Amino acid sequence: MTFASDNWAGASAAVMAALARHNAGFEPAYGTDPLTQAVTARLAELFERDVAVFFVATGTAANALALSAVARPGGVVFCHAESHIQVDECGCPEFLTGGMKLRGIDGEGGKIGPAALERAMAAHPDGVVHHGQVAAVSITQATESGTVYAVDEIRALKRVAAGRGVPLHMDGARFANALVGLDVSPAEMTWKAGVDVLSFGATKNGCWCAEAVVFFDPAAAKEFGYLRKRAGHLLSKSRFVAAQFDGYLADGHWLDNARHANAMAARLGAGLVASGAARLAWPVAANAVFAILPRDRLARLEAAGQRCHEWSAEGLPEGERPAADEALVRLVASFATTVDEVDRFLALAAGAD
Amino acid sequence: MTFASDNWAGASAAVMAALARHNAGFEPAYGTDPLTQAVTARLAELFERDVAVFFVATGTAANALALSAVARPGGVVFCHAESHIQVDECGCPEFLTGGMKLRGIDGEGGKIGPAALERAMAAHPDGVVHHGQVAAVSITQATESGTVYAVDEIRALKRVAAGRGVPLHMDGARFANALVGLDVSPAEMTWKAGVDVLSFGATKNGCWCAEAVVFFDPAAAKEFGYLRKRAGHLLSKSRFVAAQFDGYLADGHWLDNARHANAMAARLGAGLVASGAARLAWPVAANAVFAILPRDRLARLEAAGQRCHEWSAEGLPEGERPAADEALVRLVASFATTVDEVDRFLALAAGAD
Amino acid sequence: MTFASDNWAGASAAVMAALARHNAGFEPAYGTDPLTQAVTARLAELFERDVAVFFVATGTAANALALSAVARPGGVVFCHAESHIQVDECGCPEFLTGGMKLRGIDGEGGKIGPAALERAMAAHPDGVVHHGQVAAVSITQATESGTVYAVDEIRALKRVAAGRGVPLHMDGARFANALVGLDVSPAEMTWKAGVDVLSFGATKNGCWCAEAVVFFDPAAAKEFGYLRKRAGHLLSKSRFVAAQFDGYLADGHWLDNARHANAMAARLGAGLVASGAARLAWPVAANAVFAILPRDRLARLEAAGQRCHEWSAEGLPEGERPAADEALVRLVASFATTVDEVDRFLALAAGAD
Amino acid sequence: MTFASDNWAGASAAVMAALARHNAGFEPAYGTDPLTQAVTARLAELFERDVAVFFVATGTAANALALSAVARPGGVVFCHAESHIQVDECGCPEFLTGGMKLRGIDGEGGKIGPAALERAMAAHPDGVVHHGQVAAVSITQATESGTVYAVDEIRALKRVAAGRGVPLHMDGARFANALVGLDVSPAEMTWKAGVDVLSFGATKNGCWCAEAVVFFDPAAAKEFGYLRKRAGHLLSKSRFVAAQFDGYLADGHWLDNARHANAMAARLGAGLVASGAARLAWPVAANAVFAILPRDRLARLEAAGQRCHEWSAEGLPEGERPAADEALVRLVASFATTVDEVDRFLALAAGAD
Repeated sequence: MTFASDNWAGASAAVMAALARHNAGFEPAYGTDPLTQAVTARLAELFERDVAVFFVATGTAANALALSAVARPGGVVFCHAESHIQVDECGCPEFLTGGMKLRGIDGEGGKIGPAALERAMAAHPDGVVHHGQVAAVSITQATESGTVYAVDEIRALKRVAAGRGVPLHMDGARFANALVGLDVSPAEMTWKAGVDVLSFGATKNGCWCAEAVVFFDPAAAKEFGYLRKRAGHLLSKSRFVAAQFDGYLADGHWLDNARHANAMAARLGAGLVASGAARLAWPVAANAVFAILPRDRLARLEAAGQRCHEWSAEGLPEGERPAADEALVRLVASFATTVDEVDRFLALAAGAD
Repeated sequence: MTFASDNWAGASAAVMAALARHNAGFEPAYGTDPLTQAVTARLAELFERDVAVFFVATGTAANALALSAVARPGGVVFCHAESHIQVDECGCPEFLTGGMKLRGIDGEGGKIGPAALERAMAAHPDGVVHHGQVAAVSITQATESGTVYAVDEIRALKRVAAGRGVPLHMDGARFANALVGLDVSPAEMTWKAGVDVLSFGATKNGCWCAEAVVFFDPAAAKEFGYLRKRAGHLLSKSRFVAAQFDGYLADGHWLDNARHANAMAARLGAGLVASGAARLAWPVAANAVFAILPRDRLARLEAAGQRCHEWSAEGLPEGERPAADEALVRLVASFATTVDEVDRFLALAAGAD
Repeated sequence: MTFASDNWAGASAAVMAALARHNAGFEPAYGTDPLTQAVTARLAELFERDVAVFFVATGTAANALALSAVARPGGVVFCHAESHIQVDECGCPEFLTGGMKLRGIDGEGGKIGPAALERAMAAHPDGVVHHGQVAAVSITQATESGTVYAVDEIRALKRVAAGRGVPLHMDGARFANALVGLDVSPAEMTWKAGVDVLSFGATKNGCWCAEAVVFFDPAAAKEFGYLRKRAGHLLSKSRFVAAQFDGYLADGHWLDNARHANAMAARLGAGLVASGAARLAWPVAANAVFAILPRDRLARLEAAGQRCHEWSAEGLPEGERPAADEALVRLVASFATTVDEVDRFLALAAGAD
Repeated sequence: MTFASDNWAGASAAVMAALARHNAGFEPAYGTDPLTQAVTARLAELFERDVAVFFVATGTAANALALSAVARPGGVVFCHAESHIQVDECGCPEFLTGGMKLRGIDGEGGKIGPAALERAMAAHPDGVVHHGQVAAVSITQATESGTVYAVDEIRALKRVAAGRGVPLHMDGARFANALVGLDVSPAEMTWKAGVDVLSFGATKNGCWCAEAVVFFDPAAAKEFGYLRKRAGHLLSKSRFVAAQFDGYLADGHWLDNARHANAMAARLGAGLVASGAARLAWPVAANAVFAILPRDRLARLEAAGQRCHEWSAEGLPEGERPAADEALVRLVASFATTVDEVDRFLALAAGAD
């Protein structure tokens, strides 16, 4: 039982079944198989437009490669100061883009705002080589703080990005959780709001290793096949990622998984507040709960086998930060989380007093 | 039915079963799970010494990352002119090593010899910055021409490499096929013969995507965790690669698969010669057959749905190259190839006359 | 007449004379000439120890290459948020180091403090690949804000760096100005205080293009020749940089130049304050004046042909920042600045009211 | 006295005078000064069209940056197997282009031919990611073997390059020597023959460090300012390179220098043949002599203080290669070579028998 992360689960039964189903026989390698084509077509349907789709095995690769597709020499990518690409990818975006710089922008609840973005970009005026050039804006949906950008918030960031002529990338490691949280369509949350390229993550929500880089303007993906292969990210038995997506997308399985994970997180958050065991840093908007609780209670949870990641409180307004004897922890629910597990955690947290 | 490549098959039943077996429950992510530790220990046993092991999802990544671990500025990697790292990886080794140069060396049957290696290295004397510095030697086992280095041949290349103070890398995409071809132990074919770092491939021989970079001196792997993550090659649900290896290595499954593939290739090669349908460019030593046959016969095979990769004949001595109306093709058998498929191909090839 | 930057001047008469003196005859190329050896020996004397010295033509190259010599995969360099390597080098350090990340640290007057450094490093614990690994600390002396680290301040940063096992780099683009400002020896301001590698700049203080990367532990420079050549920074007629240094270092010319520049800056700063034309953001410690003055006065100075770089006021405590109708500008004096030019600027600034 | 290389000389008197002339006063840094603009305009005149010009300090940087401007992921640059970019730049082109591959093509006398180029390119069909994609063709004029491409030969290579949609780069380290050798105009030898981007070298022919990357389609240079700065190759006191070019181009000085160097080489080559001291590998076409002479004679020349670079004989047809007791050496004349020096060398070479 754990809320450490949504990547501690395995694959869902439906995804495993799809894998087994597509295991038989010989198929062309390197993504030229019919299944890969079929899944690509299904994604086009899902997004209600022609898209270019590239499968990879990790979310870090999806993000870094997507950014490499829009790389410019001396380029600067604007992202949240606490974003995954900035603090959790070991410099992979810098490396795969040939040394672009990631400029972290502060913002409450893991979100950047249009004014802060515009200000940060202003330090890089066009044509002044010394400071580098603006290259892209990257946002995470749902964010690393468990919040979700409203469609209008995405649109506002797009306006700033477009004002400087650069594309908008979305790290969708928890795309499904955000989508069901907002209750909008995939198209509305992406290209209709201005997203140019999406890291469409499925791993955390029921797959083994299934990520897709989705370009909403296929022409922008012209060189992407080379970028992926050059970085060692083209799988030979590529249909095996397609198979996962086949199971993932069939019959709304992916949305069901996300709804379940979000519901478990909501139950967990509400329960913690109701019992007085913790207060929440931000409202629960997807599948993560950011809870502030006394350090001794945290210690007892850990002693009982619950592993909780402590989180930086810098994103919180000063008055709301944890006190000296408190900690901010992240608790993540997944498709595999059960009501029982949530309730046991709640009992442990409450009873610990 | 196809002999186009050994990566057109799916995963073997045993590997799929292992995947299903290890799917349940939560496990720590990013390779810190107990199964990954257990499989690493099993590899240490297999190689009869302490090893450092890193799982990745593609062979190209395994090779390029292994070389990145021994990269030097202005470094030159010496490999066969027709090696996979040189002609089939889209510059991934150059890219992930920060721009090292791959110097291709000619040599019969896909193998480089010690004299040619020494000569090539002599163009890069120590301390002369202009020509770059020697950095590594990389050989493929089994080679891209389907041949296999004898242990003594590896040893001889190691002596040359050691004379210049650089490590020996082995691209073992078809490690098992070479091993059963030589009938030696994994230790004898690697570190006992001088191999420093191995790309231990399992994908082609029964897995979905399971490759391991194996360092025979664990101290040399100190920074490898960062190299892998920096390139986006650390899987979050990493136990899923460990699970494949678990099924792959259990009960000699991997060697059985390789023995079967090699036997199928031997049957195919012998049958082609016996029927007069083709002559062989090199003796069959692992799971690939390189056959020279008339172009019109090849056309009829292709028309019957057999896809055969044409191969460069530059590695052949001049007198043995295909005539103008002949082609050199590669035919690869895998764990999944059946006797029936071989015999049907042979009938097609023979009957085509 | 200009205080825009100390790189708007040409070369000093002494440096030009040295160039002419060493122009005759043939000499080996690529730094193997006797003059390069002699200047290297002179630098060893100057620094009172064995050093490894590498000439390059730009300060950006010196910094980025020095950092490339201590690069680690997923490495993070800690520097001031307003440092030249972070904001003025177009990502060259990221590029030449193969994608390292520069983490900017806030600190008053362009200086970082040991506590802030330690805090920033704590986000990158050893062995956790996700966040990257600490790789180096880089400070600028004199700083980009015209201030100077005291020797003890350098020592304190070194203690933090050493606590994490990483080297200390000094960007000495204005090394001489800091040195005469502190009135200490080159050894005291560098290796005796813990500096491992120095970008020893001479361009701004009297040369055309003369920068030296100085390693205080020559063993650490083993691969640097390759790093420099690999980046295209090895000059063929390399003696021409040595010749500049020959003139620069002879008879204390470099220190005389720096003393003069500092004196001109001091006169300028004092004059601005005395006339009430401006207040100073920081005390003048080297050859730069950071002045806060009314925007309309600035406009008149510019109209009179004075080009002044506006500067970010983020490094100032909130109470001391420019008001809405004020600007913070940087004024830099050089070896070539005359008393007349200072006084004319002062008159313009004062009379403008 | 030496014929080791044309980069063993200093700067010509005219170039030194120009440097001194432009030393006075303050000028904007980083290439925004009026002199840089004026020299750029002069180059436009010289080439009879609008050009984009970027100064750098080394020929290696000029070549590698020019190629970085046309870089593609997984890109392959086609060049002669013995070209400077392939064997003498320590992997700088690979490094600055983010890991492109250089594919060396054999060809007599340092030249590649259109058929060999087409064959080499055929191994990289469009759209097949494994083998990488064609990115550029690079030729050296005059070649590393001292020969010169005729205008029609350049045109033929251009046709092949254009057939695959890639640009033609010319490494003009000895541009002037080739130009006066062919007696054509700069335009005829470059863009009119199909050259897209030129490394216009002046260092070897009379400057200290003056190289220009010239784009014949200025639109293709849009990002070049960032590429140059990102690699640390933007000089702060950039007018100092412009000053060298000012002296270099004035009054045909550059052509006079080249004519003199070529004449000295011709005299040297003719003298060696006349005295029977050596035979020539290739006819003297620019300022280099490739002579085959007995090893004992070479030893005596070296003993007398003449340093001669031995050269690879692989570019020679088998029948014309040096015998076992012979060596192929390169002798290079420069603007600074005197008749006396040539004649003394000839006497030494002849008298040595």
